Amino acid sequence: MGELETMRVGIVGASGYGGVQLVRLIRDHPQLDLVYLGGDSSAGKPFSDLYPHLSQATDLIIESVDVDTIADRCQVVFLSLPNGLAYQMAPRLLEKGCKVLDLSADYRFSNLETYKNWYGGDRADAETAAVAVYGLPELYRDRIKDAQLIGCAGCYPTASILALAPLLKQGMIVPNSAIIDAKSGISGAGRQAKTNLLLAEADNSVAAYGVGRHRHTPEIESIGSDLAGQDILVQFTPHLMPMVRGILSTVYATLRDPGLVREDLVTIYTAFYRNSPWVRVLPAGVFPQTKWAMNSNMCYIGVEIDQRTDRAIVISAIDNLLKGQAGQAIQCLNIMMGWDETLGLPELGFYP
Amino acid sequence: MGELETMRVGIVGASGYGGVQLVRLIRDHPQLDLVYLGGDSSAGKPFSDLYPHLSQATDLIIESVDVDTIADRCQVVFLSLPNGLAYQMAPRLLEKGCKVLDLSADYRFSNLETYKNWYGGDRADAETAAVAVYGLPELYRDRIKDAQLIGCAGCYPTASILALAPLLKQGMIVPNSAIIDAKSGISGAGRQAKTNLLLAEADNSVAAYGVGRHRHTPEIESIGSDLAGQDILVQFTPHLMPMVRGILSTVYATLRDPGLVREDLVTIYTAFYRNSPWVRVLPAGVFPQTKWAMNSNMCYIGVEIDQRTDRAIVISAIDNLLKGQAGQAIQCLNIMMGWDETLGLPELGFYP
Amino acid sequence: MGELETMRVGIVGASGYGGVQLVRLIRDHPQLDLVYLGGDSSAGKPFSDLYPHLSQATDLIIESVDVDTIADRCQVVFLSLPNGLAYQMAPRLLEKGCKVLDLSADYRFSNLETYKNWYGGDRADAETAAVAVYGLPELYRDRIKDAQLIGCAGCYPTASILALAPLLKQGMIVPNSAIIDAKSGISGAGRQAKTNLLLAEADNSVAAYGVGRHRHTPEIESIGSDLAGQDILVQFTPHLMPMVRGILSTVYATLRDPGLVREDLVTIYTAFYRNSPWVRVLPAGVFPQTKWAMNSNMCYIGVEIDQRTDRAIVISAIDNLLKGQAGQAIQCLNIMMGWDETLGLPELGFYP
Amino acid sequence: MGELETMRVGIVGASGYGGVQLVRLIRDHPQLDLVYLGGDSSAGKPFSDLYPHLSQATDLIIESVDVDTIADRCQVVFLSLPNGLAYQMAPRLLEKGCKVLDLSADYRFSNLETYKNWYGGDRADAETAAVAVYGLPELYRDRIKDAQLIGCAGCYPTASILALAPLLKQGMIVPNSAIIDAKSGISGAGRQAKTNLLLAEADNSVAAYGVGRHRHTPEIESIGSDLAGQDILVQFTPHLMPMVRGILSTVYATLRDPGLVREDLVTIYTAFYRNSPWVRVLPAGVFPQTKWAMNSNMCYIGVEIDQRTDRAIVISAIDNLLKGQAGQAIQCLNIMMGWDETLGLPELGFYP
Repeated sequence: MGELETMRVGIVGASGYGGVQLVRLIRDHPQLDLVYLGGDSSAGKPFSDLYPHLSQATDLIIESVDVDTIADRCQVVFLSLPNGLAYQMAPRLLEKGCKVLDLSADYRFSNLETYKNWYGGDRADAETAAVAVYGLPELYRDRIKDAQLIGCAGCYPTASILALAPLLKQGMIVPNSAIIDAKSGISGAGRQAKTNLLLAEADNSVAAYGVGRHRHTPEIESIGSDLAGQDILVQFTPHLMPMVRGILSTVYATLRDPGLVREDLVTIYTAFYRNSPWVRVLPAGVFPQTKWAMNSNMCYIGVEIDQRTDRAIVISAIDNLLKGQAGQAIQCLNIMMGWDETLGLPELGFYP
Repeated sequence: MGELETMRVGIVGASGYGGVQLVRLIRDHPQLDLVYLGGDSSAGKPFSDLYPHLSQATDLIIESVDVDTIADRCQVVFLSLPNGLAYQMAPRLLEKGCKVLDLSADYRFSNLETYKNWYGGDRADAETAAVAVYGLPELYRDRIKDAQLIGCAGCYPTASILALAPLLKQGMIVPNSAIIDAKSGISGAGRQAKTNLLLAEADNSVAAYGVGRHRHTPEIESIGSDLAGQDILVQFTPHLMPMVRGILSTVYATLRDPGLVREDLVTIYTAFYRNSPWVRVLPAGVFPQTKWAMNSNMCYIGVEIDQRTDRAIVISAIDNLLKGQAGQAIQCLNIMMGWDETLGLPELGFYP
Repeated sequence: MGELETMRVGIVGASGYGGVQLVRLIRDHPQLDLVYLGGDSSAGKPFSDLYPHLSQATDLIIESVDVDTIADRCQVVFLSLPNGLAYQMAPRLLEKGCKVLDLSADYRFSNLETYKNWYGGDRADAETAAVAVYGLPELYRDRIKDAQLIGCAGCYPTASILALAPLLKQGMIVPNSAIIDAKSGISGAGRQAKTNLLLAEADNSVAAYGVGRHRHTPEIESIGSDLAGQDILVQFTPHLMPMVRGILSTVYATLRDPGLVREDLVTIYTAFYRNSPWVRVLPAGVFPQTKWAMNSNMCYIGVEIDQRTDRAIVISAIDNLLKGQAGQAIQCLNIMMGWDETLGLPELGFYP
Repeated sequence: MGELETMRVGIVGASGYGGVQLVRLIRDHPQLDLVYLGGDSSAGKPFSDLYPHLSQATDLIIESVDVDTIADRCQVVFLSLPNGLAYQMAPRLLEKGCKVLDLSADYRFSNLETYKNWYGGDRADAETAAVAVYGLPELYRDRIKDAQLIGCAGCYPTASILALAPLLKQGMIVPNSAIIDAKSGISGAGRQAKTNLLLAEADNSVAAYGVGRHRHTPEIESIGSDLAGQDILVQFTPHLMPMVRGILSTVYATLRDPGLVREDLVTIYTAFYRNSPWVRVLPAGVFPQTKWAMNSNMCYIGVEIDQRTDRAIVISAIDNLLKGQAGQAIQCLNIMMGWDETLGLPELGFYP
């Protein structure tokens, strides 16, 4: 290990939940050295004012965001900002030689028209977007290896696409038959003081939102279409759970070949992910609970076939802030650097 | 009100969550007088030993179960027992003139073959089962009116069927296209000391169970087929939520007529339930959270059409222990007695 | 019952948790008719926009606050506002003949100096404050009977004082020895969008706040001194619990007479509260859990004596939004009207 | 690091929450090699059957407990068993040369009479008990260094004693004035299927238990007396919180010297713990929340003085399963081995 290069790393948008995960992961990573924290709303405050329990992790002061400063100081930059801000900074950071990992939606779409339809905004960075690589290593490991700019996959898309990928890639399901019913812990909404996110309102309650129109739909469809080799639509419905962390994605799809049994699916999924240390396909009849993935970068997948209905049912569980966000960004960076994909990332869940 | 008859009521299986709800509801009901509590495991104990906070509700002692005693004392009997016990008592209670409301699965199936396939057991009460009425008033109000024996609808089936009924009844969806992704609070598993129901294990975690084989599937299919006028299959997957009470049922189905918009669905659902005081169809674009239904007998329904996929998405929320169990039993009894369907039942949710 | 007068009731500050409880309680109360909802921040909106599940409870529109309008329309006014607003309205409402029940701290102090020390503000309503009665019926029932203005007791003080009152009244404890360690559900902080109240931050966490300086300290001390017949100090520390509703107050005090045993305390407490339908003293060795009180106006009290340390330990449990807030206000009104103290209030807890 | 010796480690009682923490910590520790898992109730099962998400951590099969086998295979043995079992095995394990760390109460008392009074049982191992060292490194680091047998401190005593130690050691408080009001997550009760630990019963509820008679009282008193140099009594009341992990201990004690201010306490506590990497004294006015300590071996301490009452109020927060149990055992082992006290232990909390 001693021969690996140590990289100087910065985080822009350090005050949110993405930021706090990154600080912790970078601190525990043997080859990363956290040298910069940026964020306009908290500029001037020590990071430990926001998260007193992390005072031992870093004594950095959050600075107001300035691209030149960042590029001078950092070799790698994580952008953990609301949608629509990364694309104003990424081109210049790349120009100055930084590796950039964006945790927002800005660089998840090779087709900027789709981005604009769902997110709005005026984008003048088509050339940059064209070289960005979608940050889901299990599918795009080879392209990530050579990338300078990663548009890290969203939390719901990560859980959903990993559950669907083998079926789509091998043409096993009826196109457009996929229905994704996803359940997320509330930290997925970020650290924003909104009434519906209060414990008093959200505890002991479950609700759907964005029904028929959530922005992760086109992201799943665009990657799903890439896998299927044809344009597909998916039905995606997210739900808010009365818990802090975790996503469970329950995926239903009609099989083309009604003769399959669930053991076949276990075999197919296991083979598909045989080189993916962060996906664990469960034995037939075992389905994950989100707690298994808590504080781990692992995605757990359980598969079933209902022979009465000829449907595959695939259930995936991740920690939305790790494999669904900050952990995946580190996993991408490991690959970009030629390091072991698992380097510095937590493997074992936090249980109970 | 003074002219209504007051009925003497007993509960068999008083110690579980169904029992404790019934005690509370009966106490708050103007025409019901709780005179008997039975249960073999707690026989001899005052009910208030089990639930000290309900000592003011009743000073009854739980008695070991004896049909003659029950029939002597009660005009109405609620059976709140594990599956497979009610059918050993109901025929004799009916014979002795009691009205019987069974909260288990024993009398939910007109076809006992289906029951035996999914629940097992040896049944010699086919004649009794043939006269039992399925206890979902919104669909079978007229038959409940004249019934002596009610097989109260299950919690998941209540939420799921109410969400699907207008679509099925009016032949609006492709048969077998319905997928029901249901989410339940943990009280649905009853008051049983199992490791996976411990707060330490179940809190901050979500998981599916009974994937492709949950026993509420045939119940939903049998009623759904009755509504559709043809045999249908549904895909039903229950999930355990980290919360105490509530069911959210998210139902997906492919529309036969792709020209519909969601406002049409609101109109259709509102009309379908216009005489049902315990169903509330929400305005277009509004979807329920389970907390709204907590401590209420109400079922809230929100509807959507995704015009990209030609699917209807219908979301229903209930309190699994009220509209999904004890409240519905009281609602059925109100109808059997010719009383107002809402008599004595809690309407307004407990919020926050 | 038919002979009781029905009162026209208004709520100022209808959008918060106090408001939503009052709407529900008033709707379920046989003698109250809700005719007015006021609130500047939500003025113009139907109440059901804020709480869709209560659309069946009222179709009132929230109005901007105007004293003349309120007085014209209402005989009874509940003020459910942040501290410092009620005293700007109460004098004029009283003048116009309304009965006023204030849920804030404004009228809890007969001595306005204490109020100003802890809450600040400039008060010109000393005469009004002098006739206000502290709204804790178990102690001040006789004075409430004749009052026009009630300063309803705070949530923590209700739980704490009810636990301490028999000891103080009978001079059984060493003055200033009382330590109150209180635990509250998060709804006690109201419906305010603050980061520390988010489910993501507050779930699975416990913390103290206001250590040594919480504003409920002087309220407890002032009533406690009244009971003791001498000035006393108490140590009061509130803690935020990862739950929605409920307060548990654990009170420690050194006994003057070391010979007492816990059965003595049960006898003394039972006698003290023999005419108080909303206090239930538990048998020796039984201690309450807050869930017992959920959705009930009951205060449960368990008592213990540690003979090793000569301390009494008294533990009380209430629903902070009912006995700790809106329920208690209704209880006070019942007394003011000469009605039964329990009229229209929920007795049986919501369990599980 | 390469020069440190790697130790072969076994866990007896692997199936409980202590066991699962130890498996994870040992796997992440650079010098420990897990070679044995024992437990009679799960004997014959792979550990990963109990905790599927830890299948990557170990492929060991749980074996029925046999002292010779353990001693042959292990250099270090963690006993994570119910009270009363360790003392039947520890003497023989020591004899065979193992280092033993017991997580139960069996070796926490130098005076076996106290043990028998509170825990019962017949003990013939007085000589072994006499050489056991109390496993709270912040107080007994020097003795742990040379020990072969550690009676690891209990979860509540750890939080409580660390909060009290500086006050007791320096004679700053009135003897017997200490009141400890402790709040614990439910995992402290272990993985036992009891009704009161079900999510349905324990969620959204707070309750005290063991009032005046909890077994951690004599443990706190015995260490507290050792610190104070005189026999002291404490008032200790534990409470169950609706959460999985964490203990908050709120300690009240009357100061001998009323002139002190809270900044003095910060100084005194900081000095007392200056060589303790696992205690962090917070700045004046800052109090911990248990979430800060989640997944960390850290104990956070906030201090206050109420000058109205002349009391110190000290609040400590730990993760009950790490610093309160398995983490502390590893910390003790690090010291026994002459390693850095922090080796292999998680420092940064899991947040949010």
